[in-house]
Amino acid sequence: MLSRRHFLAGAGSLIGAGLVSKAGAATIPEAQIVQHADTLPPPLPPNGRPFHPVVTLNGWSAPWRMKNGWKEFHLIAEPVIRELAPGMKATLWGYNGSSPGPTIEVVEGDKVRIFVTNKLPEPTSIHWHGQRLPNGMDGVAGVTQPQIPVGKTFVYEFEARRAGTFMYHPHADEVTQMAMGMMGSWITHPRDPALHRADRDFVFLLNAYDIEPGSSTPKVNTMTDFNLWTWNSRVFPGIASLPCRQGDRVRIRIGNLSMTNHPIHIHGHEFEVTGTDGGWVPKTARWPEVTTDVAVGQMRAIEFDATDLGDWAFHCHKGHHTMNAMGHDVPTMIGVDHRKIADKIIRIIPDYMVMGERGMADMGEMEMPIPDNTLPMMSGHGPFGPIEMGGMFTLVKVRKDQKPGDYTDPGWYRHPSGSVAREA
Amino acid sequence: MLSRRHFLAGAGSLIGAGLVSKAGAATIPEAQIVQHADTLPPPLPPNGRPFHPVVTLNGWSAPWRMKNGWKEFHLIAEPVIRELAPGMKATLWGYNGSSPGPTIEVVEGDKVRIFVTNKLPEPTSIHWHGQRLPNGMDGVAGVTQPQIPVGKTFVYEFEARRAGTFMYHPHADEVTQMAMGMMGSWITHPRDPALHRADRDFVFLLNAYDIEPGSSTPKVNTMTDFNLWTWNSRVFPGIASLPCRQGDRVRIRIGNLSMTNHPIHIHGHEFEVTGTDGGWVPKTARWPEVTTDVAVGQMRAIEFDATDLGDWAFHCHKGHHTMNAMGHDVPTMIGVDHRKIADKIIRIIPDYMVMGERGMADMGEMEMPIPDNTLPMMSGHGPFGPIEMGGMFTLVKVRKDQKPGDYTDPGWYRHPSGSVAREA
Amino acid sequence: MLSRRHFLAGAGSLIGAGLVSKAGAATIPEAQIVQHADTLPPPLPPNGRPFHPVVTLNGWSAPWRMKNGWKEFHLIAEPVIRELAPGMKATLWGYNGSSPGPTIEVVEGDKVRIFVTNKLPEPTSIHWHGQRLPNGMDGVAGVTQPQIPVGKTFVYEFEARRAGTFMYHPHADEVTQMAMGMMGSWITHPRDPALHRADRDFVFLLNAYDIEPGSSTPKVNTMTDFNLWTWNSRVFPGIASLPCRQGDRVRIRIGNLSMTNHPIHIHGHEFEVTGTDGGWVPKTARWPEVTTDVAVGQMRAIEFDATDLGDWAFHCHKGHHTMNAMGHDVPTMIGVDHRKIADKIIRIIPDYMVMGERGMADMGEMEMPIPDNTLPMMSGHGPFGPIEMGGMFTLVKVRKDQKPGDYTDPGWYRHPSGSVAREA
Repeated sequence: MLSRRHFLAGAGSLIGAGLVSKAGAATIPEAQIVQHADTLPPPLPPNGRPFHPVVTLNGWSAPWRMKNGWKEFHLIAEPVIRELAPGMKATLWGYNGSSPGPTIEVVEGDKVRIFVTNKLPEPTSIHWHGQRLPNGMDGVAGVTQPQIPVGKTFVYEFEARRAGTFMYHPHADEVTQMAMGMMGSWITHPRDPALHRADRDFVFLLNAYDIEPGSSTPKVNTMTDFNLWTWNSRVFPGIASLPCRQGDRVRIRIGNLSMTNHPIHIHGHEFEVTGTDGGWVPKTARWPEVTTDVAVGQMRAIEFDATDLGDWAFHCHKGHHTMNAMGHDVPTMIGVDHRKIADKIIRIIPDYMVMGERGMADMGEMEMPIPDNTLPMMSGHGPFGPIEMGGMFTLVKVRKDQKPGDYTDPGWYRHPSGSVAREA
Repeated sequence: MLSRRHFLAGAGSLIGAGLVSKAGAATIPEAQIVQHADTLPPPLPPNGRPFHPVVTLNGWSAPWRMKNGWKEFHLIAEPVIRELAPGMKATLWGYNGSSPGPTIEVVEGDKVRIFVTNKLPEPTSIHWHGQRLPNGMDGVAGVTQPQIPVGKTFVYEFEARRAGTFMYHPHADEVTQMAMGMMGSWITHPRDPALHRADRDFVFLLNAYDIEPGSSTPKVNTMTDFNLWTWNSRVFPGIASLPCRQGDRVRIRIGNLSMTNHPIHIHGHEFEVTGTDGGWVPKTARWPEVTTDVAVGQMRAIEFDATDLGDWAFHCHKGHHTMNAMGHDVPTMIGVDHRKIADKIIRIIPDYMVMGERGMADMGEMEMPIPDNTLPMMSGHGPFGPIEMGGMFTLVKVRKDQKPGDYTDPGWYRHPSGSVAREA
Repeated sequence: MLSRRHFLAGAGSLIGAGLVSKAGAATIPEAQIVQHADTLPPPLPPNGRPFHPVVTLNGWSAPWRMKNGWKEFHLIAEPVIRELAPGMKATLWGYNGSSPGPTIEVVEGDKVRIFVTNKLPEPTSIHWHGQRLPNGMDGVAGVTQPQIPVGKTFVYEFEARRAGTFMYHPHADEVTQMAMGMMGSWITHPRDPALHRADRDFVFLLNAYDIEPGSSTPKVNTMTDFNLWTWNSRVFPGIASLPCRQGDRVRIRIGNLSMTNHPIHIHGHEFEVTGTDGGWVPKTARWPEVTTDVAVGQMRAIEFDATDLGDWAFHCHKGHHTMNAMGHDVPTMIGVDHRKIADKIIRIIPDYMVMGERGMADMGEMEMPIPDNTLPMMSGHGPFGPIEMGGMFTLVKVRKDQKPGDYTDPGWYRHPSGSVAREA
């Protein structure tokens, strides 16, 4: 699924001045394109300062080119097709074939040059959220730079002054472009690779879409009533699991670029927030938590020791963020035997969804047809039957034999005798 | 109002394996049932390790049976009727006659066995939010156990490994079942009863319902537009006051199982968050606050010294969470004398509610009929007239002569001369 | 624009008892009235204990009168006209000509007397959020005092016991009156003026309005769907910039009296929350941040060193809070060439707003008429073209030559060579 495109700057392209030599501007590094949603753990850095790469959930890290001491990346802003989960594809905007775009990983002190090519139908820009940089590189269209016109390439150049976890996203027609999926993660690793070392280091972004059942393009003016709550533009059961070896120190970096808070919750373990997009949280200031509320425009790095074996739910705790689209405005039928009349109502109101008079779990019994390219509201099957989840839900899987560097899903946990219930 | 039912496990019931002996499975402890909403401070523990019980606001703590070193509880998931405030009853689902269910109180190191009988019309399960336990006891239907079928009993068994404040709720058709009121508090007291000792120790849960005026069953698919914002399924003026003696160290443990953040605010005192569902907050990490934002799926234990006498408002600071149902979509009439036309409009649009051209306070003047089983939007009378509140609002009442262990409402505060205003 | 009114207490006015002498009640201090929205940095205190005054963004600080050792203020609750930004005026309720009302600044230990005159069409009261005070001065109508009737004056008296940042707002028909703009900031400066000293010290409140395009009076029953997200009742491009000198220690005190959380974000710098309405945050407890989530009913004082020159965006990170009214419910047109049909649709649905099939940035091209007294949804022009923002957005402007005490907008930043991009 990997493909590569070589991109040559056309005449009249927008190029950063100053530090870009004529020779440098003449050749723009090729942009790697990834069009699937598998988790692609990156290799160890082939050149430049050493670091321990992060694993982007259902994503990948951008390769770079070293050129005269600069680390050069190339991002192409463009329409993309994103599978949200098997059975549903969305027409989004992203970078280099993906939404979110690739994670950018550099090291504290690196001189970084990012070529941004605009293949969208409207102008754009990129703001490098959280970073210390010259004002002219901050990416706020109108204020610190002109918009990047359609078809042009803009060059951002700055030193990665501060180690930490950051995000990138447009700051031109910003609400539309983020509602379409334009965003990505950025890690600036510490100069000393031993600092803040974790055995597993994951990153993903919280985002959300409002896509009518049967449709594929998000409604870009929705402010709060999104119907697809996503991690890196994926919903359960499409979100990869987080496999760990028992005893691992696990870090999960979570950035929120949706429109509301997401209280991220883990089962069976306590964690601490050890870092934000503002820096590392001093040890004296940390709180023990099982749920941390990640506000919009915040990055939270949480850490815990994966001490206990098993499949531990890891999800947003707002109930309606662990459901997929459809069915939010249905009347209550609890206490009413509706099976005799539901079929009649559906003939009149085609998108009518009845809720069982015994709760929601018997929805399947109604055998209601679902539109094409639409996910069921509650979904997933585990070793013990239906899971009835959607949206921002996955599992941290702690295993005795998961190897370092192995991120393949280890499958379902076999409960040792004595900890699982069964019929007597 | 207290009643008791003796429950015998029928053939084919679902029983936890392993540590449950044949003898143990044969008899299930009786389940205490409480069907009113009074605050019932529990007695000191009659057996097992000693602890200082908490006081559940408008609630109660479940009794247990000691059996071969195990502390046995019995929860029955079932439909219940809950009075939200005098004048309104809701048809909910809960445990043992109540919504929320009884608070479970154990001691660090206790071996705990909970029999869960499903008397709902659909399958259920219980997740023990925040606890360290074997994966098979975590209660996530499909992932760690099968759903508990209608009519069956499931047995959860685990050691209370970590002291703290927790919650319990279903993890099967979870959004529906929590929207119907299924939840409860859980306290694991520290092994040393002197640790983290407070003079007053309250607990309650934040929840919310969407019940049409005149109706009694919640709409279970509401995601954000709830119209009844509740503490332990009660609204002002139905929420009990929190009586304290001047000088008391007061702890209030607040868990959020609604769908949005609740900024909990106290008047006249500052507090610190001293504990979460993840553990105790180190002293170096605490912030002085008058409002703490409790996110969904979070427990916050706040503490303060009740230094100042009086009736201190204690409420969610989101204004529309301190109002009851009705009237959210009415047009603005400020500046318009509507009294001549309001009656005409109401004849056309029966549920039309006019807002006074002088504000909302003169709504009473309109003498609009309120549907049966519906609370006024703004309510309550104090020593100085109308209080105009609803929802998540009550009072912390600090008195010189409130006795330790006395939780009866001490009535209104008499302002000492010099601190109360009056007409000159 | 400054005017002054002398206000004499009429017979039968409501006067605080106890410490108010007959002589004191006879004369009420004059109330300064300010009816514009300029930032008015207050002078150094002319009498009483010395302090470093704060700068209220698009606001002012109330003068006081010293009388027998009491600091006397006079607030008049009344209808006001507020310009939200050039081109739009709102009909609000406020204090002394403004919404928000003037900032009240006192010193720890001051004896404070506030005369509150009610010139609204309905009763009111004032609650002094966060303060330690006698219960009878807490301002909760019905509970601690009667409502202040129309036309009457109430006297609040208490010692400013605790230094910090507070708020004031009604606690009678509270949701209506706050939805109409009634609120203000309160600073109690520390007794030692050197304590917590900052070079720049700003304060403002987060609020929100729901005003139909073409209208001027807020809908007071809106709970969450506000369309004008404001700082001190101003929206971009009407919000003043925050001018700083490079190297300044900057404090910004932000109180939230809207109905939802606001994640406040700064570009190019990290900050710490150093204070809340509950007190100063200990150094060991502080987190480095670039975004802090200010919950409803919370005050957050953030501090940073203005190290880096430039125009740094400072805004709420919820995208729809950086847009003005209009256009939230439009269908997605991305991928559809609508220019041929848009005009026809507008003839049928007059308030129909089309979104460009290439994004939102080409909305201007449609040349749609905007109703009178309505702001464009995305607005503002900088040195590099359209900024496309609204709502809760402004700039922190860091300059080498900004003088201490100078709060005039320094204009746009000139990027030094090498840090700004341009066409090659």
